[in-house]
Amino acid sequence: MSSIENPDRIADLITHFKTTFPAETRPALLQQVIPTLLYAITDIANELRRSQNVSQVGTANAFGDDQLNVDVATENLMRSALAKCPAVKTASSEEDPIERPSNSIADQSNTSEEYTVAFDPLDGSSIIAPNWTVGTIIGIWDGPTALNQDPREKQVAAILGVLGPRTTAVIALRLPGQDPVCMEVGISDSKIEVVRTGVKLQNAPFKTRYFAPANLRAAADDEKYMALISYYINQKYTLRYCGGLVPDIVHALVKGHGIYVSPVTDSSKAKLRKMFELAPVALIIECAGGRAVDAKTGKDILETAIEDINEKGGLTCGTKEEVDLVLQKLHE
Amino acid sequence: MSSIENPDRIADLITHFKTTFPAETRPALLQQVIPTLLYAITDIANELRRSQNVSQVGTANAFGDDQLNVDVATENLMRSALAKCPAVKTASSEEDPIERPSNSIADQSNTSEEYTVAFDPLDGSSIIAPNWTVGTIIGIWDGPTALNQDPREKQVAAILGVLGPRTTAVIALRLPGQDPVCMEVGISDSKIEVVRTGVKLQNAPFKTRYFAPANLRAAADDEKYMALISYYINQKYTLRYCGGLVPDIVHALVKGHGIYVSPVTDSSKAKLRKMFELAPVALIIECAGGRAVDAKTGKDILETAIEDINEKGGLTCGTKEEVDLVLQKLHE
Repeated sequence: MSSIENPDRIADLITHFKTTFPAETRPALLQQVIPTLLYAITDIANELRRSQNVSQVGTANAFGDDQLNVDVATENLMRSALAKCPAVKTASSEEDPIERPSNSIADQSNTSEEYTVAFDPLDGSSIIAPNWTVGTIIGIWDGPTALNQDPREKQVAAILGVLGPRTTAVIALRLPGQDPVCMEVGISDSKIEVVRTGVKLQNAPFKTRYFAPANLRAAADDEKYMALISYYINQKYTLRYCGGLVPDIVHALVKGHGIYVSPVTDSSKAKLRKMFELAPVALIIECAGGRAVDAKTGKDILETAIEDINEKGGLTCGTKEEVDLVLQKLHE
Repeated sequence: MSSIENPDRIADLITHFKTTFPAETRPALLQQVIPTLLYAITDIANELRRSQNVSQVGTANAFGDDQLNVDVATENLMRSALAKCPAVKTASSEEDPIERPSNSIADQSNTSEEYTVAFDPLDGSSIIAPNWTVGTIIGIWDGPTALNQDPREKQVAAILGVLGPRTTAVIALRLPGQDPVCMEVGISDSKIEVVRTGVKLQNAPFKTRYFAPANLRAAADDEKYMALISYYINQKYTLRYCGGLVPDIVHALVKGHGIYVSPVTDSSKAKLRKMFELAPVALIIECAGGRAVDAKTGKDILETAIEDINEKGGLTCGTKEEVDLVLQKLHE
């Protein structure tokens, strides 16, 4: 495969992969695709840092050109990164939801690995103006397409890039025949540092229980959702809900407990995209020992193939026993 | 006064001050103290960005040494900045809550201005590990002490530094004889850019109404707070609550609407410090056309002098009519 720029920058990550997986495991994925995507996340963070004028969109009634410029710029950064990886055959994104050939440089790598990457370069547009943490969501699938595939078997890796005061990422890998892993890295321009090797949702008893109720307005018209919220308050769960999918999910992973609920009700349609949001988040959560179900069907998100790239769903995810409780309270 | 490093960096800000205030208005405050504090906020942002290991505290049961190191480092950055400003006679902080002489360099400025600065260098410790936006809070008071003074008259400026994907700050000034002003700046290593000159909470009708219910667990034991929460849900307010005081307040200011409620109930004591949190936030909110009351007494925060530097209170602030509604629902 083509060489990666500045190998020192990723030495810590590569060492960690080598101690985690057998020798010769997927060199293109581990030594090129994932490092290159982490570089792209740094580039997105730097782009966002330069974009002071996005704060002006908060003053307008709708998102203006500045907003669009950041979306376009971050999309392009991801596309350029993917074009450097011969093993990435196709890519699709929330901005351009079609699996297109990723225009790789000529493949001199003789790699037998073939991936498609589905990504949302900048998730959380409503909280960019107030300068809250936002994120990048990436799913990596075996083969040239993620459509009509078994997500549990074919989505082999996912990355949540966290664009906050620092730049960090949570990476999950579930390679066939290997134990699932979930880790956290800190990303700077000079170094990608593995800061936590075993990101894991904890078992009971919990010191603090966190809940993140998305789309809370739906509770006004839905007795079951309202009853669930009352339950959390009466049981003295701690509220943390910033409204950005990546930071809300990563909060649970870092704290070791959390329940995120984005319900689908009569008045509130499913709004999270399966390909670009739900599937990658579900892989991360499962690799951290949690559970992620479609709040609409109550079924595990990764149980069902994605047939249409624009499919949407609800999301209930986090600590397993908390997800079970939500299923019981919302679906029974 | 001693010269500021790199005047180009603050040219935009200085020009804005010159068009806003009469010539010769408080040169030490406008041309030195505020720019120096904004530089300190950049330094804090850079320090935080280098501190990847703070994410490890999330895995422990309590905050460890890494956390303390960041607190100490950011405190020192603020103290060094203040020592460069001859007009700053004393300073106190959440980390060291005593008004101490700020060890300024020899004063060759012949300035007649005298200030005390009260600050919290890094507010939001519980959300540093998950890499959510946190903040720096600064209040600037006329004279050598902020104790036993009339806050409305003596606290002349406040800054909320927002340490997120970007580094931004909201600055409020209420100088005697001048109209209050509130502005937003974007801060980079090379430039401090005024991105919004008139930060203002809007008047009705509101397109979207936001609520941030702090200390929500208190609602389990307090019927009135629970009724208020039910009211917001039933009226379809949008929930945004990250649990960091600075980002939660700045969200309302950027969106133009918001109500933040941190109540004081029988089971839940006042926990926000008047000197380092409530007073600066209240000045910002008032200069943006909003209202900030102590949720314990129902009185405007800036109505009462601070007698003890460790005094605490509750907080209800944001859009005026929303604050009035909370007073009605919680206090009557």
